[in-house]
Amino acid sequence: MFMKSVRLGLLGYGNVGSALYQLVGERAEAIALRHGVEISVAKIAVRDLNRDRGLDLALLTDDPESIVNDPEIDLVVELMGGIEPARTLIEKAISNSKSVVSGNKELIATHGPELIAAAELAKVDLLFEAAVGGGIPLLRAIRESLAGERLRRVLGIVNGTTNFILTKMYDEGAEYSEVLAEAQALGFAEADPTADVEGADAAAKAAILAALALGADIRAEEVPREGILGISGDDISMAKRLGFTIKLLVLVEEVGESDDPDVSVAVRPTLIPVSHPLASVRGSFNAVFLEGDAAGELMLSGRGAGGRPSASAVLGDVIESAVNQTRNSWSSLGGTRRRAVVEPGEVEAAFYVSMDVLDRPGVLAEVAGVFGDAGVSIRTVEQIGLGDGARLIFVTHVTKQSAIDVALKSLLGAAAVGSVNSVLHVIEEG
Amino acid sequence: MFMKSVRLGLLGYGNVGSALYQLVGERAEAIALRHGVEISVAKIAVRDLNRDRGLDLALLTDDPESIVNDPEIDLVVELMGGIEPARTLIEKAISNSKSVVSGNKELIATHGPELIAAAELAKVDLLFEAAVGGGIPLLRAIRESLAGERLRRVLGIVNGTTNFILTKMYDEGAEYSEVLAEAQALGFAEADPTADVEGADAAAKAAILAALALGADIRAEEVPREGILGISGDDISMAKRLGFTIKLLVLVEEVGESDDPDVSVAVRPTLIPVSHPLASVRGSFNAVFLEGDAAGELMLSGRGAGGRPSASAVLGDVIESAVNQTRNSWSSLGGTRRRAVVEPGEVEAAFYVSMDVLDRPGVLAEVAGVFGDAGVSIRTVEQIGLGDGARLIFVTHVTKQSAIDVALKSLLGAAAVGSVNSVLHVIEEG
Repeated sequence: MFMKSVRLGLLGYGNVGSALYQLVGERAEAIALRHGVEISVAKIAVRDLNRDRGLDLALLTDDPESIVNDPEIDLVVELMGGIEPARTLIEKAISNSKSVVSGNKELIATHGPELIAAAELAKVDLLFEAAVGGGIPLLRAIRESLAGERLRRVLGIVNGTTNFILTKMYDEGAEYSEVLAEAQALGFAEADPTADVEGADAAAKAAILAALALGADIRAEEVPREGILGISGDDISMAKRLGFTIKLLVLVEEVGESDDPDVSVAVRPTLIPVSHPLASVRGSFNAVFLEGDAAGELMLSGRGAGGRPSASAVLGDVIESAVNQTRNSWSSLGGTRRRAVVEPGEVEAAFYVSMDVLDRPGVLAEVAGVFGDAGVSIRTVEQIGLGDGARLIFVTHVTKQSAIDVALKSLLGAAAVGSVNSVLHVIEEG
Repeated sequence: MFMKSVRLGLLGYGNVGSALYQLVGERAEAIALRHGVEISVAKIAVRDLNRDRGLDLALLTDDPESIVNDPEIDLVVELMGGIEPARTLIEKAISNSKSVVSGNKELIATHGPELIAAAELAKVDLLFEAAVGGGIPLLRAIRESLAGERLRRVLGIVNGTTNFILTKMYDEGAEYSEVLAEAQALGFAEADPTADVEGADAAAKAAILAALALGADIRAEEVPREGILGISGDDISMAKRLGFTIKLLVLVEEVGESDDPDVSVAVRPTLIPVSHPLASVRGSFNAVFLEGDAAGELMLSGRGAGGRPSASAVLGDVIESAVNQTRNSWSSLGGTRRRAVVEPGEVEAAFYVSMDVLDRPGVLAEVAGVFGDAGVSIRTVEQIGLGDGARLIFVTHVTKQSAIDVALKSLLGAAAVGSVNSVLHVIEEG
């Protein structure tokens, strides 16, 4: 049997890069047997040649350009992260007719459509399964298995740090600041957790999901996002009492029934009924819940981060590309195009609104009247005594954001309303 | 842009076939836009030409051979089910260098390895995503995304009928016979439910999972199977009391740490802790839980049957094959080989054993002593009074089936033991 040899050039040797190197060592023989391709790591670009990694020094270079220009390298694996120099290196690799596998969510979320188009034109692969959901076989499922599917909505828990924190807050009734320290001690949160807790990491993944699931060219910086810093222990215990949990949720959906509907993309803390499959995704696990026209509801879940799960996803891409090379073929990701994004005020959802009011007769009727005047219909309301005041918790029926905004503006001007504590989206039963 | 036209020939026009025809109509334009292939249904083979289907009669033929031999047909979609004539027709299509998409689990589970090898030799596709888990993008995830992964264990709920029945029995404390009638009335069970409730349907899917996940050539008829007919409402309520639910589970796993470990494949009702992700898969939903060396634990869930979900899976395969045709390429499924199957006695598991005994002092010690003599270690035991007797429920630690068999033989000979009601496997926390 003819065996095609595929030599990898690795750009970066951090957590995922070193796990990939190890995995290739463990699995190369089995891969050759099952897929007919001999995969080996031929070169690794690192920043500092002098650090001891226990690797043959002949494998290493501190010049990543030499890898993307090396005619002996068949496939470039970019695991450096960040926009530059990763972007320029990938462009050079593609223009040298080399296929690329990347795990770089930031780059793909920012410049994905151009890079995907360049790869298509050069008839090489650009694959990035590890960029969203780590080891969960998510992107390939969307772009291939569900290629014929009209996906209406994608809901995702795609950030392990925030899911770990929110799960702890839910289980222990703790506050964010207490749980963050524990997450950092356990390695589930970075020393600087900003990108996770403010939703930037999830927003990048939302942009990638929008491209693959809806063919929508929406860039990371265009995704409206709200992190978890505003979520109090109180919000979570109230949500729990009402039968919900709170998750930092990516939402990507088509809105309306036209042939070319607008799309809505966002990252925000969201109340989810405990009976919804996403509510059972706990700790640092990730999951994506898909709603398709024909396939119905699907959920894929697993470890969304970590060196070995991500390396497993990278290796799946490497094998796909290596097999493609034996046939002079490549994998297309499908085109993307700019699509109209729903105006913020037009976004429809059910809402959770928590506010503190004076505890006197008539206040509930007054507040309820304000919602009614704004055209917002109330599903449930809870009142909790607070010494000399009271807390009111409303869950509305589905309504437009603009109607909620009108109601909130009136409420903040009402004498009986002390403060509005939280306004959060709510999703319905799965 | 050059647009490749791909003409489908459908063999069969039942539930899935008609949903596929409709879906192609709905989605062809969007598919052309995103994937650059024009898909159309050119011919449909049906048994009875005279039945009114609301289709153009020029599309129909009652001679399926004419489709697999038609040079105008680019891709054959086999949705007839059963072994013959499907097998012969697929062989002819392949020998005519036509790619084939099939949803026929019975055929693939019985003759898959030969058909896959024939397709590989002819350099055409043979894809069958719809054969396991309906619309869940399962097989592609295993064969591509997890291509580099060493999968250790696959646990699956792959039969919607039995999961519907077991879920109802769990929720309502009802008996099998009551729930079956309801499932039949709702269309979740066939008039003749034998293939579902006796485990043959799940065994076929187990064989396919063994081939794709472990590269193991094991045929449907070789898969040991036990259906749900022996599960009483009593077993389920006792399992519930102990913190478990009972599911008809497919198990495919490697056993031991050698480079070429034996494999274990089976279908059986199994106790699952309620905290395990598979326990939350309810009603007619399906799911597969995968444990990989690097990726860790993954779960994919969704609708495992139904015309449109299955048609969505078929259409994903059709698009993959159509795109392959634009590049003169094809998708390989990876080879399979015969692998040693663990001897039944050597299978290791935790067990649930329910038995009725005389209610007198010393009986528990006597029964526990029999387990101990057989080398079986007990994790928990519950005793329930039954008028003049008692029921003992044991959950053991992991042990060999042969040790349990030795213990059961002694117990059935013991004067204090009236009957052994159930012996079921138990899986540990996920």
